[in-house]
Amino acid sequence: MKASVILAHPYKESFNHAVFNRVCGSLAECGVAVRSHDLYAEGFDPVLTGSELGREPSSDPLVRQYADEMMESDLLFFIHPNWWGQPPAMMKGYIDRIIRPPYAYDMPDDAPGGLPVTTMDGKYGIVYNTSNTAEERENNYFGDPLELIWKQCTFGFCGIEKFHRRMFRIVSDSTETERMQWLETVESDVVRIVSEAGKGRS
Amino acid sequence: MKASVILAHPYKESFNHAVFNRVCGSLAECGVAVRSHDLYAEGFDPVLTGSELGREPSSDPLVRQYADEMMESDLLFFIHPNWWGQPPAMMKGYIDRIIRPPYAYDMPDDAPGGLPVTTMDGKYGIVYNTSNTAEERENNYFGDPLELIWKQCTFGFCGIEKFHRRMFRIVSDSTETERMQWLETVESDVVRIVSEAGKGRS
Repeated sequence: MKASVILAHPYKESFNHAVFNRVCGSLAECGVAVRSHDLYAEGFDPVLTGSELGREPSSDPLVRQYADEMMESDLLFFIHPNWWGQPPAMMKGYIDRIIRPPYAYDMPDDAPGGLPVTTMDGKYGIVYNTSNTAEERENNYFGDPLELIWKQCTFGFCGIEKFHRRMFRIVSDSTETERMQWLETVESDVVRIVSEAGKGRS
Repeated sequence: MKASVILAHPYKESFNHAVFNRVCGSLAECGVAVRSHDLYAEGFDPVLTGSELGREPSSDPLVRQYADEMMESDLLFFIHPNWWGQPPAMMKGYIDRIIRPPYAYDMPDDAPGGLPVTTMDGKYGIVYNTSNTAEERENNYFGDPLELIWKQCTFGFCGIEKFHRRMFRIVSDSTETERMQWLETVESDVVRIVSEAGKGRS
């Protein structure tokens, strides 16, 4: 089994980094081959170019590497803070530039406005977010658009139905004990997801 | 009256550019002072840096210019395509880097998880989007997260209650006549918005 683990946070000591490290460690303990990328550390350029608007392969080697790894992976992990109900621009650029035709999906010329041809069916999409907003305000005022963005607009569009998302909050108010418990939760999630995904493959 | 008009689309001949040009032209005809920026053309870097996580001013002169112009403006226009239920990374980076403490809002140290101190109350937020997704699928399957993202998460967070958003669809199927009509709609919107905003100031 293979996993792609993508992180976007500018601060190396962030709790997002701790989640990223725990995901990668837990996957390795489960015997999963891990391809992990800290987009900030690798200097990824999130700006989709004009020539990437269509079906042409990107000329950026990092983009091609990330795309190859995503397509080979059974599990797709994304870890980022909740900034404005959205991922940071760095993570948004991964979506814009990596999840592109013709590999991640295709859009036939004769069906504009129609449905995409999906190529990632059967993969498992997992998202960890951190937030400094109270749950009540997130759900009732902001409407938690990250749930729609990942579940429907990204994974759903690509034919990915197996989905798990967890938002850790309120990080700025949290104690070390809470954060340790959150990382334990990450580890339990990973074990369960690997087990589920393994059954799906048999 | 002053307006800031921000565009993010990589293709210079895009319909987004036509909307941008019509917004700027209509504002000028109404006597509004226009500060317009094509983020791709200006080579804006959308990646928020570690030192921009807090309240420190950015060291990027373009960021400081955009922020000054935003704060001076009565009308804030944003024009971008619907990519994955979100703005392109280029536009997301404008939100991440320009709409920051302490100028665009502030977050007191003693209220983590609490409410921001807003500083942009009374401004008018306007968003134009283009889409290649049918309205029924956008609303019922994807859930149109761009509405939440802009109305609640961005403008609402900043205390901006006057809001107008319009999504032009399906651009890939549209005729030239339709696109001409859409641009007429933009012009009518601008005239109405300037009139409304002028009354609010008197």
